[in-house]
Amino acid sequence: MTPDELTLADLPIRDDLRGRTPYGAPQIDVPVRLNTNENPYPPSPELVGDLAEEVRRGAGELNRYPDRDASALRADLADYLGHGLDASRVWAANGSNEVLQQILQAFGGYGRTALGFEPSYSMHPIITTGTSTEWIGGAREDDFSLDPAKAAAAVEEHRPDIVFLTSPNNPTGTALPLETIARVLEAAPGMVVVDEAYAEFAREGTPSALSLLPSHPRLIVTRTMSKAFAMAGTRLGYLAAHPAVIEALLLVRLPYHLSTLTQAAARVALRHRVELLGTVDALRRERDATVEWLRGQGLTVADSDANFVLFGRFPERRAVWEGLLERGVLIREVGPPEWLRVSIGTGEEMAAFRAAMEGVL
Amino acid sequence: MTPDELTLADLPIRDDLRGRTPYGAPQIDVPVRLNTNENPYPPSPELVGDLAEEVRRGAGELNRYPDRDASALRADLADYLGHGLDASRVWAANGSNEVLQQILQAFGGYGRTALGFEPSYSMHPIITTGTSTEWIGGAREDDFSLDPAKAAAAVEEHRPDIVFLTSPNNPTGTALPLETIARVLEAAPGMVVVDEAYAEFAREGTPSALSLLPSHPRLIVTRTMSKAFAMAGTRLGYLAAHPAVIEALLLVRLPYHLSTLTQAAARVALRHRVELLGTVDALRRERDATVEWLRGQGLTVADSDANFVLFGRFPERRAVWEGLLERGVLIREVGPPEWLRVSIGTGEEMAAFRAAMEGVL
Repeated sequence: MTPDELTLADLPIRDDLRGRTPYGAPQIDVPVRLNTNENPYPPSPELVGDLAEEVRRGAGELNRYPDRDASALRADLADYLGHGLDASRVWAANGSNEVLQQILQAFGGYGRTALGFEPSYSMHPIITTGTSTEWIGGAREDDFSLDPAKAAAAVEEHRPDIVFLTSPNNPTGTALPLETIARVLEAAPGMVVVDEAYAEFAREGTPSALSLLPSHPRLIVTRTMSKAFAMAGTRLGYLAAHPAVIEALLLVRLPYHLSTLTQAAARVALRHRVELLGTVDALRRERDATVEWLRGQGLTVADSDANFVLFGRFPERRAVWEGLLERGVLIREVGPPEWLRVSIGTGEEMAAFRAAMEGVL
Repeated sequence: MTPDELTLADLPIRDDLRGRTPYGAPQIDVPVRLNTNENPYPPSPELVGDLAEEVRRGAGELNRYPDRDASALRADLADYLGHGLDASRVWAANGSNEVLQQILQAFGGYGRTALGFEPSYSMHPIITTGTSTEWIGGAREDDFSLDPAKAAAAVEEHRPDIVFLTSPNNPTGTALPLETIARVLEAAPGMVVVDEAYAEFAREGTPSALSLLPSHPRLIVTRTMSKAFAMAGTRLGYLAAHPAVIEALLLVRLPYHLSTLTQAAARVALRHRVELLGTVDALRRERDATVEWLRGQGLTVADSDANFVLFGRFPERRAVWEGLLERGVLIREVGPPEWLRVSIGTGEEMAAFRAAMEGVL
């Protein structure tokens, strides 16, 4: 075999990677992109100008490594989260994916297990097995809710080192009552991660697991600036937890993992949070209208506390997905069979989605 | 125990992390920082302006995820490297640490081994064990060189899944002859990583392992923009390898791992490479002068192809390190006992180092 003939199958990759394909929604350039739960509202010219100015100020020292501990950013994130948090209780990385990977590197690994309730964020099992941790898939009810007693029983049965909860859950959309999280925390022998990537979109009165932190040192609440904060391009995920948890993550984080530019951009975004989070109300209204409209079409639609809606059921969901794509609307073929997920865009984008749906149905 | 009393030891971290302390040189604010092999020359106002302008242009789409495959950046990096490479043979991540971690996730993992020749870059064993891969420490000669026959014999004995070579080696400073790399490639049953983080500083006529790529599909050459490119704050590491190797890395990379800002900043730096790499000659001259001066003081000094110099031997190296720090000069206590490493700074910084050394000796 010449080098030119060699393929991936000829390389000595890890056995559990053989036959896999890379994760990721298709990045297709279409007029209406409603497939990756991005926030459709771009930053204002003021924010862009402020960011460029901050880069200009900081770039003169780009020959130096960034603050390895991202102290100022972590203090800003703690200030945003409230709940009496400070920098010692907050950690940040390149997207919540890296935050989750660091958690698994510290508390998982070979011979350990992580349990999540599916359907859920598909990166949880991928990152779990990517760190040689064994994934245990727990089940949800038929309406995608989580029964507290059954969830606690699953944790007691499997005694996982890490439990993943999601509130709101992706791709199904609903948040968890605090009682469910508390029940799982009581039952769990190890760490409990509550993935709150979409927390800011939750319906009025939905509590955050952050309120459970003072009494639960094995609880980790993860967040991201990619969704409500409309900063997906900045790649900034973060978490809140007991200071000892942060110390554990320091043992596995790659040194200088967060660039000077990422730290600066995230801090600028936090300064502009009134503007950025100002899009949340419009997106919530658009979401609720989308749920109502889809139901009006006779479709089954999951309740949503997020910036996306899961709807179905389509015996041939691929045909629906393709039909929408032909009409310039890209949504996501994800979650349980027969269901599709649409991210909430601007009013114009959702009108285009509805028109495309009418064409397809 | 109340939550306030809980410490890291009370958390269920992985057993092999117990008792560890976080990696990283002390980040101390002193006048002369010669401890992390940064390039002392900051980017020019023109580069800074170009970078700020590029951020201004791109930031209007920060609500969208970055190009997951960083295609344009990889094409630019391939163009810089030459050797007939293209984007399909180049990969990039947040610093060469993340590049190395991805290599270990794809080709290492539990039940697999990685071999390196010590003393060498201390992150190699840390990232190795962080991915549940077993680290095997091979030996160098007393003068820190690598004997090709012994290196090949060590590879044949241990049959590691991954071999780490370093050229130039950190913290000792010397590059490897291509024959040594070729011998190891012949002997190795798995992947061979040649870490060329400091390649641009090598003495005239030192070949790069890039020239071996066409005939060796299991060879990976890693590079960084943190050193010669003077972009440590940007966190951009990269590698060149057979396209099938890149496909393997796509299976383990976290989606959207490289932010829009990182991709943009690295591309701006590559456009300004004549300026940035223009500092290399001055640093080489300063390095060679430093080697000569230290030898003139009666010290033992390793040859260097890098932007740092390893020197000794000090039965009490901590006292020397502290004596320099008291005089405002921060160097690195790293490598074999009785040796210290000084990064090469500007002419003024190296004069301060020499003056401080005279005070200490």
